[in-house]
Amino acid sequence: MSNVHANIERFARGHFRIGEMFKSVSRVLILVSPIAVFADTKSETQSSANLADRYRNSVNGIIDSALAGNDAYQNLEYLCTRIGHRLSGSTQLDQAINWAMDTMKNAGQENVHREKVMVPHWVRGKESITMLEPRREELAMMGLGGSVGTPHEGIIAPVIVVHDEDEFTAAGDALKGKIVLFDNAMHPYDPEHGSGYGTAVRFRTKGASLAASHGAVASLIRSVTARSLRSPHTGALRYEKDFPQIPSAAVSVEDAELISRISARGTPVVLNLKMEGKSLEEAESANTIGELRGSTNPEEIVVVSGHLDSWDVGQGALDDGGGCAIAMESINVLRKLNLRPRRTIRVVLWTNEENGLAGAKAYAKDHADEMRNHVTAVESDGGVFKPAGFSVECKDEKRQAAGAETLKQLMPLLSRVGAMKIDMGHSGADVGVMSDAGVVLLGHNVEGATYFDYHHTQADTIDKINPDELNQNVAVLTAVLYLIADMPERIGS
Amino acid sequence: MSNVHANIERFARGHFRIGEMFKSVSRVLILVSPIAVFADTKSETQSSANLADRYRNSVNGIIDSALAGNDAYQNLEYLCTRIGHRLSGSTQLDQAINWAMDTMKNAGQENVHREKVMVPHWVRGKESITMLEPRREELAMMGLGGSVGTPHEGIIAPVIVVHDEDEFTAAGDALKGKIVLFDNAMHPYDPEHGSGYGTAVRFRTKGASLAASHGAVASLIRSVTARSLRSPHTGALRYEKDFPQIPSAAVSVEDAELISRISARGTPVVLNLKMEGKSLEEAESANTIGELRGSTNPEEIVVVSGHLDSWDVGQGALDDGGGCAIAMESINVLRKLNLRPRRTIRVVLWTNEENGLAGAKAYAKDHADEMRNHVTAVESDGGVFKPAGFSVECKDEKRQAAGAETLKQLMPLLSRVGAMKIDMGHSGADVGVMSDAGVVLLGHNVEGATYFDYHHTQADTIDKINPDELNQNVAVLTAVLYLIADMPERIGS
Repeated sequence: MSNVHANIERFARGHFRIGEMFKSVSRVLILVSPIAVFADTKSETQSSANLADRYRNSVNGIIDSALAGNDAYQNLEYLCTRIGHRLSGSTQLDQAINWAMDTMKNAGQENVHREKVMVPHWVRGKESITMLEPRREELAMMGLGGSVGTPHEGIIAPVIVVHDEDEFTAAGDALKGKIVLFDNAMHPYDPEHGSGYGTAVRFRTKGASLAASHGAVASLIRSVTARSLRSPHTGALRYEKDFPQIPSAAVSVEDAELISRISARGTPVVLNLKMEGKSLEEAESANTIGELRGSTNPEEIVVVSGHLDSWDVGQGALDDGGGCAIAMESINVLRKLNLRPRRTIRVVLWTNEENGLAGAKAYAKDHADEMRNHVTAVESDGGVFKPAGFSVECKDEKRQAAGAETLKQLMPLLSRVGAMKIDMGHSGADVGVMSDAGVVLLGHNVEGATYFDYHHTQADTIDKINPDELNQNVAVLTAVLYLIADMPERIGS
Repeated sequence: MSNVHANIERFARGHFRIGEMFKSVSRVLILVSPIAVFADTKSETQSSANLADRYRNSVNGIIDSALAGNDAYQNLEYLCTRIGHRLSGSTQLDQAINWAMDTMKNAGQENVHREKVMVPHWVRGKESITMLEPRREELAMMGLGGSVGTPHEGIIAPVIVVHDEDEFTAAGDALKGKIVLFDNAMHPYDPEHGSGYGTAVRFRTKGASLAASHGAVASLIRSVTARSLRSPHTGALRYEKDFPQIPSAAVSVEDAELISRISARGTPVVLNLKMEGKSLEEAESANTIGELRGSTNPEEIVVVSGHLDSWDVGQGALDDGGGCAIAMESINVLRKLNLRPRRTIRVVLWTNEENGLAGAKAYAKDHADEMRNHVTAVESDGGVFKPAGFSVECKDEKRQAAGAETLKQLMPLLSRVGAMKIDMGHSGADVGVMSDAGVVLLGHNVEGATYFDYHHTQADTIDKINPDELNQNVAVLTAVLYLIADMPERIGS
């Protein structure tokens, strides 16, 4: 196998041109199939240091293969270009599910199937905001997902601007009959604190019912982003049952500032809000599943996942076509390298992450019996940029700490791709439903400086994704999945 | 005057809080008015080195005053917030002209008047592009200024994608009956080469007639920008008289890439282009003028200018409300400091820069008699970012070189604000019409990394402008105007 290794070393050092690399990869696979290229000595005892040594060759082989080229970009391109965005209930989501099934079947994955889930079916329809006073202008807006519509002629009302909860409370009776604008600015990203999304998004979720609780007739938010080219950002709202459901939309940062500037000078701003948004009957959808079955412990499950649904704008490339493409490709890389781990790796492409989590909830219910066999569940839903590491989440703090420790010891194996950081924290919205079962949950993290510029907008398109970075993420995620699925002891034990 | 100077020194060193600064500025003005704060010793001979010494105090006073706060931002905010965009022929442009007249009159400027100009009157109407094949999607688009419309039901045709002139020529007969997409990517900005706008914009100008010359039914361009959040950029096209006028629009970078990706795989893309764009009868408009009359040579004119018209989207903040606000404020700063130069400084707010240059052409014609007395004409039309210097343009190479040399010697006076570079090159579209008369033309340059992200889009709004940077530009432009208008010899002589 020395020639094979020499070739792989040459890929890694970039001594081949792209065309040559593909040719050589084919040759490697022909030469060595069906025997695993990088057989590892296994034992029933493990320590992290030993693990790293033991898996070094396998991980290098995974990285070489993933970086040399794989199907992830081609799959993502098809999804984004030929299917496009895919909100729960849409024809496009059905197309995407069928396509993902076909793609995994054609790649030779095992147990490829769909699991039925009933999902909310909200449709946007036409929508607009026209400023009527003090001058006429069309504002850049998008209704929030789940919002009720307005009467056909729209709602015409003056705006009251509040920047935070204190200003809202202080406004009191003045809110009655008004359109409330929550002009809460999101802090720009910085490497130390990350993005300001987590806090700024609260008015998108609660704003409508908060405004309704004080008699407002509609609510608007400043789009949840720190950068804008007059770009409205949609996303889900949540109506509380005690208050009337009022229409709610996001305006662009620029339009929120326009309204605020005029209002701050004491000049009334009057808007005409028209929205056709409505919720239809629940629709049939599905989680899409494919597996690489485990060699010795197939009943133990390592889930790798992304969500196939998206908002009804853009192409759902970063959110979360990329996560789906990475998850699908991970078992493809292992299968091509003939690396079958002890445990089963299960790809789950969730439905309805964006507006209901119905897919994740159905999975937890339908798989309750085997939930204790779920060793880990990973979600990739933060876009596709340079891979940055993993967040470890587990209800059982000991398992969380032990899992994180093991991963920290293993991360140097990935240093060729970049410095990977292991932290404690949020994993992912879908895998989060397995938290109660004590599963070790992992969030796949990537560099996050620009993700929220595109999030839930028309600009979430495949051109934002660098194919090399996509490959790097395939490399990192596949390696970590293989480690977790193959090491003798369950992670966190 | 030592107390006054001490205060000014303290402003410069930032020893005052903002509120205190304003109070102190008022006190300075009260103390010294109506005598010039910084009287300079003048002589009828000059050398650049002497000039710098001679004007150091005046320039420091101008910088102190401009940086301590002035009316430019407040004026720009009114223009952008309360009037908005203002295409030639629009009510908003009339409002802007009236507002600029009132503002200059209220500030005590001399000879404030408007000079009538007939301008093209193009209206956009409704417009859309729907991709029909291989899947249905609304594309992000804007018609190009001056484009004819389509029939009511639109034009339905397959797309042919070309990336440059060679591919266009190679396409030959295949162009017939097609919608041509010129998918020519603009190079991103870099400090050495600047933006790629100058070359990439050519298809916006010539694309429609080029396409029509080969039988195409419509033409599209990739928006002329290197950054996009699905943001279409408009701008003027030029129909050549020998070819049919076909509808022409810009699609966003993302949509151009979408069409190109699909086409590159051999799959036909069919679009439905609908545009209501049309040219109405010429409309009455005006250049808006105000002056600080010269003390000893009022007949000699130094023009400082921006264009008051904009495209019919966004707020025309960077293009070119900012230039207008800076020009208006320059003579305001001098007047407040009681610095009346030898020559007249004339503010000209051009009409119709964007789609015809009718304002500039009319000015050159109407002022032909005094054109030889035009010492310099400056245009600020590159947005409002950190001031970067000036480009010197003159038909007479000797005057150009001499003028540039004088400015280079004077730029160290502005080093408190930043390093200013003097180069030879394009001044501005409007002042360019005075080139034939041999006037020394100056383009006011600013840092240009992001200007074209916003250029001719809905995102050209005042929130993109940093008030401190606006003040810095007021400081730099006012100082240079004062130097040119006051130095004993004509610049370039």
